Amino acid sequence: MTFSKFFPVWNQLSGPQKDMLISSAVKRNVKKGTVLHNGSADCAGLILVDSGQLRAFILSDEGKEITIYRLFEMDICLFSASCMMNSIQFDIVLEAEKDSQVYIIPADIYKDLMESSAALANYTSQIMASRFSDVMWLIEQIMWKSFDKRLASFLIEESAIEDSFSLKLTHEKIANHLGSAREVVSRMLKYFQSEGLVTVTRGEIHILDEKGLRNISDK
Amino acid sequence: MTFSKFFPVWNQLSGPQKDMLISSAVKRNVKKGTVLHNGSADCAGLILVDSGQLRAFILSDEGKEITIYRLFEMDICLFSASCMMNSIQFDIVLEAEKDSQVYIIPADIYKDLMESSAALANYTSQIMASRFSDVMWLIEQIMWKSFDKRLASFLIEESAIEDSFSLKLTHEKIANHLGSAREVVSRMLKYFQSEGLVTVTRGEIHILDEKGLRNISDK
Repeated sequence: MTFSKFFPVWNQLSGPQKDMLISSAVKRNVKKGTVLHNGSADCAGLILVDSGQLRAFILSDEGKEITIYRLFEMDICLFSASCMMNSIQFDIVLEAEKDSQVYIIPADIYKDLMESSAALANYTSQIMASRFSDVMWLIEQIMWKSFDKRLASFLIEESAIEDSFSLKLTHEKIANHLGSAREVVSRMLKYFQSEGLVTVTRGEIHILDEKGLRNISDK
Repeated sequence: MTFSKFFPVWNQLSGPQKDMLISSAVKRNVKKGTVLHNGSADCAGLILVDSGQLRAFILSDEGKEITIYRLFEMDICLFSASCMMNSIQFDIVLEAEKDSQVYIIPADIYKDLMESSAALANYTSQIMASRFSDVMWLIEQIMWKSFDKRLASFLIEESAIEDSFSLKLTHEKIANHLGSAREVVSRMLKYFQSEGLVTVTRGEIHILDEKGLRNISDK
């Protein structure tokens, strides 16, 4: 059990606090497609992703979905423990997108620990701020979706030019091409990667799904 | 100086912690239209609204705006202190929508206090969770904006039936009319109120801007 990998503040916790986290955690293996959490009425607890991939989405009354964020190995989901904070007033669904192994920490235990450890409370705020950033980015995409189109078009064009699906391009270089910022390019590529459109490695972008990129570019 | 009204956890802070908050706070009177914070490069500090009204919005490259939330008396803005948390990776603009009086607490001082007080750190998480809920609600509106139309139409219709701009209707009753939940109605009415379309008092809704409601209903 290597909880320290989930919590950078592990060494700031006391022995009993560490024991409490470890002993309360329940390990669960879930198959792809399993719903781990469904709306705010459900309070499964804090979910730590040991392996696999989870998807958090919201659901309209008519059954439409929007992916809010994805969780990969070492990520933590707070909103599956929404009863921990009464200010969390929205419903997400959390589903395993691949076979996954997770640890679940009961919300009441985590809440007690946050109340006794400022370090853990502050780390929890950082996690929330990080999800908040994902969601703000999503709003910008929804409202002003222009950059995803531009980047998708650019990748298709470069691929045609090089006659290859492997593009040796730094994010900086793409940013310069598109008159954008390196951070914006990196973020969008990360998103394309999470959608299975490309893989991004150091100095190289590999196109996995050209048709998917075309769909974005043409929409 | 009544800081306890901003911080429900005031009594859980030590004497020196309270002194630190009070002595570091800078009072500022701002005129309507003043920009108090502009993007993440700017780190004005934590802003406490003593009176007036602030608007937080994001801005596209093309200058388009979306209001993310509004802040009223006794509200606190964290994101104007984004340098406090490196996980905050988005830019908001904060503007005074009315003449306002605010207190500004330097980000570094607040950060130190959060690190020494679990109570303050947890309260800060609650504030963030509350803004997160606002933003999630906004995404739902943007993606599936149907309920705002339905509620606006309903209010116009009721007003015509009663031949009055004052409607004696509980939120529960409206929810039953529209096949929705009371909470959803209350939230949307709160939003209509913040937009200056209606005023909501116990058991009564007063229409201030019928044209505005029609614009929503017809869009």
